[in-house]
Amino acid sequence: MRTVYVNGDYLPENEAKVSVFDRGFLFADGIYEVASVLGGKLIDYPAHMVRLHRSANELGMRFTVSDDELLAIHRELVSRNGLEEGAVYLQMTRGATDRDFTFDTEKLTPTLVLFTQARALIDSPVATRGMKVITIPDLRWGRCDIKTVQLLYPSLGKMEAKKQGADDAWMVRDGVVTEGTSNNAFIVTRDGAIVTRPLSNSILPGITRATLMAYSEKNGIRIEEREFTVEEAKQAAEAFITSATVFVGPVVAIDGVELSDGKPGPVALGLRQTYIEESLKRAI
Amino acid sequence: MRTVYVNGDYLPENEAKVSVFDRGFLFADGIYEVASVLGGKLIDYPAHMVRLHRSANELGMRFTVSDDELLAIHRELVSRNGLEEGAVYLQMTRGATDRDFTFDTEKLTPTLVLFTQARALIDSPVATRGMKVITIPDLRWGRCDIKTVQLLYPSLGKMEAKKQGADDAWMVRDGVVTEGTSNNAFIVTRDGAIVTRPLSNSILPGITRATLMAYSEKNGIRIEEREFTVEEAKQAAEAFITSATVFVGPVVAIDGVELSDGKPGPVALGLRQTYIEESLKRAI
Repeated sequence: MRTVYVNGDYLPENEAKVSVFDRGFLFADGIYEVASVLGGKLIDYPAHMVRLHRSANELGMRFTVSDDELLAIHRELVSRNGLEEGAVYLQMTRGATDRDFTFDTEKLTPTLVLFTQARALIDSPVATRGMKVITIPDLRWGRCDIKTVQLLYPSLGKMEAKKQGADDAWMVRDGVVTEGTSNNAFIVTRDGAIVTRPLSNSILPGITRATLMAYSEKNGIRIEEREFTVEEAKQAAEAFITSATVFVGPVVAIDGVELSDGKPGPVALGLRQTYIEESLKRAI
Repeated sequence: MRTVYVNGDYLPENEAKVSVFDRGFLFADGIYEVASVLGGKLIDYPAHMVRLHRSANELGMRFTVSDDELLAIHRELVSRNGLEEGAVYLQMTRGATDRDFTFDTEKLTPTLVLFTQARALIDSPVATRGMKVITIPDLRWGRCDIKTVQLLYPSLGKMEAKKQGADDAWMVRDGVVTEGTSNNAFIVTRDGAIVTRPLSNSILPGITRATLMAYSEKNGIRIEEREFTVEEAKQAAEAFITSATVFVGPVVAIDGVELSDGKPGPVALGLRQTYIEESLKRAI
């Protein structure tokens, strides 16, 4: 049985509980991060913690745990659960108090929950067979740059994709792709440039997105940070997604239209390989 | 100490907990209802349960408790907590399972939580001094007709109102008022008609809204179901909100512009009185 961290305690997973008055449960007043683990070490960890601080700051949430403590908890969970490959999920909420739309942050103690999930990340079917995506309207709220637990729509979107025999959904707002349900979206143009939309309130500032873009530039791959339509994506040479746990996931079909002959494209696979190699070097 | 209902058990409030793996906590995959209590009896109860079924249905959530059981739980909590005036809060989530954007609803047991909140509803300051509202952009998701726990933005909106010395915020999308942070918005025209926007995906189908509109029609008050702008609202004879716990709340200022001389207007107060009298007659 997994050990789960809840507010200072390491508990068996079936005893890991939060109050029904937790604002994360009643108001979705919570933020989260997911850090990958390869070979028992954390991938891109510092960037995830920077983003966690940003999310808390945007929502005026208190941050009562130090960065050193957070890292120690991550490592303790990896160790206790013997996690070699997978992820550590962290959720922080504003805290528990009787239900009210208004609140006094200063009087609340944030709730902190962490757990591990073992999963094969490197030897993933996504890399060998690629992902099929459908497109759906982006009905999410206006601050998708904050990593909150308001994930109902993305969750239903992924279910819709599954129902249609696909792996994920790309969301579309104002005629252009915003992002996947839990990842950033990219296309590769016929002349080899990587296209992804610039950061805004409409998408999550992906850690893997940022890291990958830095690698690409270093490797001389041109990056065009601009919006793209579904039509342009369907006619692209390749497409792929980035996320903390998938790394780089080649996309082989969009709304049933095959890309790169329905097989993972060379640019996506190359970037995936680079990302994994570089991440392993920098893992902590 | 209050008694709280959690999945079949009546527990002291400090022991009322849900799993950290509950999808309500991790994905905001939960719906809720708030039924008012006056004189120990439930107000507009059947309509709240109809809406709960609708919310579950829209999200493909299982409904594993019968209507009779739900009513019995409401009454048991009212009784155990000696609740004379206030509300019963009910939250249902898809259930607890290891974190994944995809899920198998059939394999999940919905989580059911209910608790009471004692509060003076009839003798409320809102009725005597009225409410001041500010306006903010409506940044919520595209399915506000489903009563989900994705309440972070409305909660932050009410906090912003409080910060500005007001009581609530009216949200504005595409130049027109959608609704308040936890209530429907109305104005009264200079010739005595009540204006409120028609139901759509952009607002909650308020129970009090529907009941009140029925009363108004019966009392010969003309209702115009159409959108209105903030400018029109500022120039209206009166404005008010409806919600399950406020009933009818007169609005006396919008963005600092006073309505009906800064005092609760006669139409709003009359409707409030009618609503309370009729509700008491029909309470169960």
